[in-house]
Amino acid sequence: MSVSTAEQATALVHAAVPALERFGLEVVEIDTGRVRLRMPFAGNGNHMGTMYAGALFAVAELPGGLLPLNLLQGGAVVPILKELTIRFVRPARGDVWVEAVVDPDTLRALAQQAVETGRAEFVLDLQVIDQEAHVVAESTGTYQLRRR
Amino acid sequence: MSVSTAEQATALVHAAVPALERFGLEVVEIDTGRVRLRMPFAGNGNHMGTMYAGALFAVAELPGGLLPLNLLQGGAVVPILKELTIRFVRPARGDVWVEAVVDPDTLRALAQQAVETGRAEFVLDLQVIDQEAHVVAESTGTYQLRRR
Repeated sequence: MSVSTAEQATALVHAAVPALERFGLEVVEIDTGRVRLRMPFAGNGNHMGTMYAGALFAVAELPGGLLPLNLLQGGAVVPILKELTIRFVRPARGDVWVEAVVDPDTLRALAQQAVETGRAEFVLDLQVIDQEAHVVAESTGTYQLRRR
Repeated sequence: MSVSTAEQATALVHAAVPALERFGLEVVEIDTGRVRLRMPFAGNGNHMGTMYAGALFAVAELPGGLLPLNLLQGGAVVPILKELTIRFVRPARGDVWVEAVVDPDTLRALAQQAVETGRAEFVLDLQVIDQEAHVVAESTGTYQLRRR
């Protein structure tokens, strides 16, 4: 499993998790140690005219699974979400974005640790922002890389 | 806004949040101070054959908005999710359920407080269970009732 373009990553995500295709979630940029996602507002609003909390959860949750994507040793290692806290800072009334950056060497060391010991844990703190770069949500996710 | 049957509540939820209709989320039972929801596995899996984390978030998040539904004074008070932590305890491989119970008098006092002071906060600890009553996820949500 290896992706080199944002389009490939979006297709992979949609095939892996149909709910994310229904959300219209899009991988905008991806590289080892870096990913940027977009969640469209269209189709993901609520009766108050703001983005549904679950759409904000979806875009905040995914980077922890995508960042190590090209380091998973052909599926020998899988990323698992253990726990996520999301704080809703202000209502989102349009598309939102999240960018996650982790040192590639840190990710490689985690993948190696998972291969050798069976698991490796990491924590990801992210901000979801709107078009004006206002923070609409903040998340803290705890992920594990696990040897299959 | 008032609902008296689970079918009415399901229709209301689907109309308010299209993403929840796409998940197929169903209100199974509802009464003042009590709600039980079902999230189907069909359409909500991932590449590992387990339920997508976002579907578990969705079913854990909704009770905080539904419980006070018949106490919202015709829309004068709205429920808002401030923060939610979800812990993934074990993979879900089939439909899951969540049941939330809060003393109706407590909810009425919160709604009254929101009308008088502008807002009232409450915390909801829930468990998401599978068909064998195994806990698959645990959540802690902080909600506000706000005067519009």
